[in-house]
Amino acid sequence: MRLRNIKNAQDIISKSEYLILNPKDYYGKAYKIFNNKNKIEIEIGMGKGDFLINKAKQNPDINFIGIEKYASVLVKTIKKLQNIKLDNLKIINIDAILIDEIFKQEISKIYLNFSDPWPKKKHENRRLTSPVFLKKYEKVFKDNYNIEMKTDNKKLFEYSLITLSQNNYSFKNIKLDLYSALNDDNIQTEYERKFVSLQYPIYKLEAECKIAKKM
Amino acid sequence: MRLRNIKNAQDIISKSEYLILNPKDYYGKAYKIFNNKNKIEIEIGMGKGDFLINKAKQNPDINFIGIEKYASVLVKTIKKLQNIKLDNLKIINIDAILIDEIFKQEISKIYLNFSDPWPKKKHENRRLTSPVFLKKYEKVFKDNYNIEMKTDNKKLFEYSLITLSQNNYSFKNIKLDLYSALNDDNIQTEYERKFVSLQYPIYKLEAECKIAKKM
Repeated sequence: MRLRNIKNAQDIISKSEYLILNPKDYYGKAYKIFNNKNKIEIEIGMGKGDFLINKAKQNPDINFIGIEKYASVLVKTIKKLQNIKLDNLKIINIDAILIDEIFKQEISKIYLNFSDPWPKKKHENRRLTSPVFLKKYEKVFKDNYNIEMKTDNKKLFEYSLITLSQNNYSFKNIKLDLYSALNDDNIQTEYERKFVSLQYPIYKLEAECKIAKKM
Repeated sequence: MRLRNIKNAQDIISKSEYLILNPKDYYGKAYKIFNNKNKIEIEIGMGKGDFLINKAKQNPDINFIGIEKYASVLVKTIKKLQNIKLDNLKIINIDAILIDEIFKQEISKIYLNFSDPWPKKKHENRRLTSPVFLKKYEKVFKDNYNIEMKTDNKKLFEYSLITLSQNNYSFKNIKLDLYSALNDDNIQTEYERKFVSLQYPIYKLEAECKIAKKM
């Protein structure tokens, strides 16, 4: 997600208690961020934060970390959090390409919500479900690999079903029109609300890795 | 596909040179049906036959066998074939549940076109992509397993993506709206033409088994 640059965005988010300033310091010991051994789930491209803030509220026994590369977007998340106290939510302001330099065999689930589809073939490696990224995720997952993805982009969804299936994932759940089969535990992102109101179908998958590989 | 019963359907199709009268006689030696060693592909639920007749016309070096349980439907296929000479096409009038009593490690690809979705959970085992059928297909495939499926039924497609991925298949190709990405080598079934004209999306997948199991 891209927004116009907000002046001093970096300064604003740096002052928030939710931001992890030096995430590489916690490499292999992310539990220290939360001071407990609860499982950790991450969202790559957390955008304006609605999804992960609600996840954290609903699941106090799970720790959540949102990753977002645009400080100008994170400002909106930080503002939403100003009057909320959530001990199980943290934010990292980096490019997802660095994810395997931040985490090491300690993540239980990755959420990908309305990721940039990078439609051009030459940008394939930037898609968050490309084999390049799937290889990185293997390094950060603890034991079982779990990926949950939502998108309104048909081609990205087709692509992701293919790459995940070719990289040892199987599917636990697939919805080709989420809102025709809506259930209560779906938490909408801002982007999702907009698309649903336009009546585009929203696609969702839950994938898990069949072979628990040990590094 | 169900049609009203056509009187003497069994008699009519029995007289056709395209029908294999005693398919179990060829168990493990289906190549004898065609007197050559070309690869053999089958369609389960061939319906009125358009798909497989056109496949056979376009691919003279591949042998095709259509399986259909309703004689009343096969009558329509047989009539279409009356003035056509295709050495690489044969028809079997059985229930697909018997498929592993007809073939043994000799089939290269299975086509499933607009199969009955059997929407009720209690009928799950009748769906042609249920684990019950996938186990049967394992016995008939020669080496690599290849399944190509088209349907207009969203729930059957979601179900099939899940069961295939959970049974060692990966996807080579997926289209969530075939006619928005139409290519020349798509051969329409009668049913497909009807649904496309109504502007329902048609789903397509091409799955292959990652692990070439030897029996």
